[in-house]
Amino acid sequence: MKILIVGANGLLGSAAASALRGRHEVIEASRSGQVSVDLTEPDSIQRMFDEVGPVDAVISCTGSVPFKPLAELIDKDFRSGLEDKVLGQVNLVQIGVNHISDGGSFTLTSGVLAREPILTGAAASLANGALESFVMAAAPELPRGIRINAVSPSVLTEATGYHEFFPGFSQIPAETVGRAYVKSVEGIQTGQVLALD
Amino acid sequence: MKILIVGANGLLGSAAASALRGRHEVIEASRSGQVSVDLTEPDSIQRMFDEVGPVDAVISCTGSVPFKPLAELIDKDFRSGLEDKVLGQVNLVQIGVNHISDGGSFTLTSGVLAREPILTGAAASLANGALESFVMAAAPELPRGIRINAVSPSVLTEATGYHEFFPGFSQIPAETVGRAYVKSVEGIQTGQVLALD
Repeated sequence: MKILIVGANGLLGSAAASALRGRHEVIEASRSGQVSVDLTEPDSIQRMFDEVGPVDAVISCTGSVPFKPLAELIDKDFRSGLEDKVLGQVNLVQIGVNHISDGGSFTLTSGVLAREPILTGAAASLANGALESFVMAAAPELPRGIRINAVSPSVLTEATGYHEFFPGFSQIPAETVGRAYVKSVEGIQTGQVLALD
Repeated sequence: MKILIVGANGLLGSAAASALRGRHEVIEASRSGQVSVDLTEPDSIQRMFDEVGPVDAVISCTGSVPFKPLAELIDKDFRSGLEDKVLGQVNLVQIGVNHISDGGSFTLTSGVLAREPILTGAAASLANGALESFVMAAAPELPRGIRINAVSPSVLTEATGYHEFFPGFSQIPAETVGRAYVKSVEGIQTGQVLALD
């Protein structure tokens, strides 16, 4: 398969690339990578697909969200999380559907905060919850056997500096999360949240 | 209790008001009502609370979202659903927290599309999923014993004209949904989604 990974330079994107490279042709895209894309700009997404050509799978490991105590989260913070993590990935699907082969797949990335709270995490939870319900709802409406899933991991073992914000949460090795992307790309499921807790 | 119901002129808001009136002082707000508010305008929310004074509970039964086939949903549609249904209700909480009594409660309204798909419902699912994860995450961060829940009903029995879009879905009488608002306001739970299927 020809697989496009957006956000390929991050921990999750690298794990997905490592797990898929070898058996597949992997194309890496990121804000400042081999193939360049900014998911907050629909034109940039369009240019990426024009450059890369048709693909069999699209994986997105992108999206940043502000972390602040609830009392300090203002309207702009919620918007910024939605803009970057939610609308960026949604636009990747809406534009990408015209560039993906029959039976191809989209795999987005949400996260454990969709289902569990942490201090300062309300905007992230909102964004992740939006993504997971979108994936569930979009799956049955995608044409030509195209599938869509979300990988939703707890905090990564390798994400040093973040563990204290996730007290008692499972720490998931990036390699384990990489296998979830493989499951989504090479499996048959659609509309699913692949939760790693 | 002094209870402010936003969106009080709709089916759900009327049901909440009927279920709570009598035992409580109910203040009804809507875009063009007794007390006027537009949740998409933070200034309008602030003016409403200045007018109404301190309250013990806030119920929101508002938010419209565009319904279109996935292939026709554009960036603007997803934004409009988020603006109206999600950010409006989030801002109601973020501003309202300064006007609600110790141990008071917020009750927002999401819907079955957070957990089940219908044709044309992807933007609605995204918005409802966002709200439900926000409620789960915001609850433990609210101060002074203030609680927050979401009422998440399937299609209403009384919502004639919509039933064909929800084939086989439970149809819930508005009176039953009204009791869920009572449970959230008079009960002790917080961070919960009160699903009515």
